[in-house]
Amino acid sequence: VPLVDNGLELLSEDECWELLRAATVGRVGLSVKALPVILPVNHQVSGNKIRFWTGPGLKLQSVQTDTVVAFEVDGFSEQEHTGWSVLAVGLAVEVTDGAVLDALLRNGFQPWVSGDRTHLIEVNVEFLSGRRIVTAAEADSKGETGAGLG
Amino acid sequence: VPLVDNGLELLSEDECWELLRAATVGRVGLSVKALPVILPVNHQVSGNKIRFWTGPGLKLQSVQTDTVVAFEVDGFSEQEHTGWSVLAVGLAVEVTDGAVLDALLRNGFQPWVSGDRTHLIEVNVEFLSGRRIVTAAEADSKGETGAGLG
Repeated sequence: VPLVDNGLELLSEDECWELLRAATVGRVGLSVKALPVILPVNHQVSGNKIRFWTGPGLKLQSVQTDTVVAFEVDGFSEQEHTGWSVLAVGLAVEVTDGAVLDALLRNGFQPWVSGDRTHLIEVNVEFLSGRRIVTAAEADSKGETGAGLG
Repeated sequence: VPLVDNGLELLSEDECWELLRAATVGRVGLSVKALPVILPVNHQVSGNKIRFWTGPGLKLQSVQTDTVVAFEVDGFSEQEHTGWSVLAVGLAVEVTDGAVLDALLRNGFQPWVSGDRTHLIEVNVEFLSGRRIVTAAEADSKGETGAGLG
């Protein structure tokens, strides 16, 4: 029985990894000069690592020095007011091994954005959580009380 | 002529507001106990403020004490490898005026998630930026050199 917390069903770790792997675009969250920033990237999952390309600029300048970042994927239905999200947190490090970079590019993992994006960042996921909106009907069938405003 | 920066077209402030207003779901980025967090919410724009509901938990505990947060909306086409994103940054404060809350609820602005989400947060946008992926064809027609890996 899934755990429901204030209208949100908590996803299992396996479900979180599955959703992370299935998504092609996620969002990197980090602090730049003490201000929060969220920037989307197309990504790939390998083991417990999330990979994305970046170039000179805000993201790289921060992650070059081994920064803890958040990585989020989600999906929503505007019509049904449902959706889910997965949040990973971990240390981001740059991969500089040319053989690794070449192999990834050969296998078709490339940045969607043209221009200088030849730096590969890997996030070593240390914290992972996921949530799904429980519809009113589901909440009723599970006997949740206080369906609130949704 | 739009400004192109490393494969990304920078959007005007008007375009950014238009995309923020048109989106129904955005993502709040903030630091919680010094760790970056990204959490999606359904939102509404009024003037230069972004509003969303929240409940007891991470988000509210942080924004109750007037925190600077990021707010992001985006849209992507997996098939065409195109997309855009808008990033707002500003001070988040809780609105406690019962008349304001009642008026918003009467006008249909309600949280998608059921449960206890009766706290209204407003982000006063102080920094706003937007980017759009320039396709290879567009980059060619604009004479951008070094189309890179995209």
